[in-house]
Amino acid sequence: MIQFHIKAPDKGLEIALQDKIDNLTKPKGSLGTLEALALQVGLIQQTLSPVLRHPVNVIYASDHGIADEGVSKSPKEVTRQVIHNFLNGGAGVCYLARQHGFELKIVDGGVDFDFPVIPQLIDRKVRKGGTRNFLHEAAMTEEEMEKALQYGAGIVTDCYNEGCNVISFGEMGIGNTAASSMWMTCLTQIPLIDCVGAGSGLDSEGVRHKYNVLKRSLENYDGNGSVLDVMRYFGGYEMVMAVGGMLRAAELKMIILVDGFIMTNCVLAASRLYPEMQSYCVFGHCGDEAGHKRVLDFLGAKALLDLGLRLGEGSGSVCAYPILDSAVRMINEMHSFKQAAITKYF
Amino acid sequence: MIQFHIKAPDKGLEIALQDKIDNLTKPKGSLGTLEALALQVGLIQQTLSPVLRHPVNVIYASDHGIADEGVSKSPKEVTRQVIHNFLNGGAGVCYLARQHGFELKIVDGGVDFDFPVIPQLIDRKVRKGGTRNFLHEAAMTEEEMEKALQYGAGIVTDCYNEGCNVISFGEMGIGNTAASSMWMTCLTQIPLIDCVGAGSGLDSEGVRHKYNVLKRSLENYDGNGSVLDVMRYFGGYEMVMAVGGMLRAAELKMIILVDGFIMTNCVLAASRLYPEMQSYCVFGHCGDEAGHKRVLDFLGAKALLDLGLRLGEGSGSVCAYPILDSAVRMINEMHSFKQAAITKYF
Repeated sequence: MIQFHIKAPDKGLEIALQDKIDNLTKPKGSLGTLEALALQVGLIQQTLSPVLRHPVNVIYASDHGIADEGVSKSPKEVTRQVIHNFLNGGAGVCYLARQHGFELKIVDGGVDFDFPVIPQLIDRKVRKGGTRNFLHEAAMTEEEMEKALQYGAGIVTDCYNEGCNVISFGEMGIGNTAASSMWMTCLTQIPLIDCVGAGSGLDSEGVRHKYNVLKRSLENYDGNGSVLDVMRYFGGYEMVMAVGGMLRAAELKMIILVDGFIMTNCVLAASRLYPEMQSYCVFGHCGDEAGHKRVLDFLGAKALLDLGLRLGEGSGSVCAYPILDSAVRMINEMHSFKQAAITKYF
Repeated sequence: MIQFHIKAPDKGLEIALQDKIDNLTKPKGSLGTLEALALQVGLIQQTLSPVLRHPVNVIYASDHGIADEGVSKSPKEVTRQVIHNFLNGGAGVCYLARQHGFELKIVDGGVDFDFPVIPQLIDRKVRKGGTRNFLHEAAMTEEEMEKALQYGAGIVTDCYNEGCNVISFGEMGIGNTAASSMWMTCLTQIPLIDCVGAGSGLDSEGVRHKYNVLKRSLENYDGNGSVLDVMRYFGGYEMVMAVGGMLRAAELKMIILVDGFIMTNCVLAASRLYPEMQSYCVFGHCGDEAGHKRVLDFLGAKALLDLGLRLGEGSGSVCAYPILDSAVRMINEMHSFKQAAITKYF
């Protein structure tokens, strides 16, 4: 498998960073999470004056064989329809990206549709038609998984070379909450029932059916249970691409903005392979999807927002960006007690 | 007392607004709080295409007689020092205002300092030296309260005339979490002990002392317990000004962005006088201050953010602004299923 060289940020600068933050004109700690974020970003960038440059939201898209079992409210063709909506600027994440100055990169990792050549759609199809149905067989081959990791990482290298140092990951793929639930239960040992939710809007009968399909899939699984095997057997191409993208981003010391349930499970897989990658992650949003809070807890992570979003696409992470920006502006723009000639009483 | 003419928004447009929101290209309800905010703003503005114009953060500042009892970690002079920091652009709320395009208005409602004439500092001193010490006597007279309400409202009229339709309220005043705790316990009947917190950073002994001072103040109070009497007896000028400002904003059908513990208690008082005013409120942030969550619960309100901020100044409400902006952009910029030619499966 492709190797990544990921180191946690050097902590040598921590005291100086904390000192700068504590000497800003505010009661110590009174900017809460903004202070913690400023410290994290300062350590990642190894500077007392961090900057956010050229934010990008990468959306990896692909179709899932398991969707044939009716595990989603929406049929497969919605994946490609929504991609057209991305390209036309009409989707949820599009206006959020415009609002916060993100470039959008849309990557076809294996959508079940033959797109014409469209300049704004990045063609990285691992396999026509998407993954296989993991109720009966592995979703992808080892070669396909390697390709997906490489493709996912390559996109991030491109972003980096274009000047990006903060990257959000989103996804589109009917059926991918089901695939994510399988990663979650296998990689955390949390019982499947606690990992399965309504996805894009199943009713309780729909959730029960989804659970039953996934339970049978788990029973049918005869792999070795390793992180890589679980990723390969149950994953989507877009999910494996996101893992590759995240690992490359950590390797390049970029800030990783994590979206919802699916992307959090990609962090789960990525961090099982390279635990140090988690130092680069900022979790944008905790949604209502059953299991999201539990997988965040498992990772020891707390998301910035809790707005009941369940759209995917990177909407939660892009929506959280101004908070990260506030943290960086805080450490650069607030005056110190010395500058402001304020008694450091508080 | 000055009268306000406040009506809750007409609900006639609700079905059309909800229909527009439900037909945007996303699973129904999947943008969570953004959808609820879009509905609220659409109703306030009585339009399917709401806009946010010229946001302003008004900071009312004043000193408190009760500060002489050592209820705050910081001495009174910090109030005027921080005002200089506002004017120099170095305070926390300053960079947040720049980030989100807010105008800042700094209002001296009774700071214990003789400022020279400074163009950017709006002089509305109700009384030199701030309020009286409510451990021993009423913080202000009826005439002073009336003046504070009028002044507070007048500032908002100015904002409105300058084109503002969304207004955030912040405060600065050493001792004002103590005053807010008194309003909270008297207006909600929640026991005082659950209304008192660390303010700008008291340790547990400091909080105990603050509680004891407030308990004695409550025992000494011999007023009639009406909303107006409680406001007058324990309030700060900046708090009463905020109540006047909020009521005028509701009268003018402006969106009210509510900051932290102190401003939430101003909504509490304002909504006891005019319950309809709450339809105009968007709660920005729930802080760690003991009692903040409880007073929000009492109001049936949920704040957009929970980032552990406890700075005041309007920092929490200004920080939350991009979420409100996201809601408004959603209803204006997202394509409908019809426009996008997406099967309305989800």
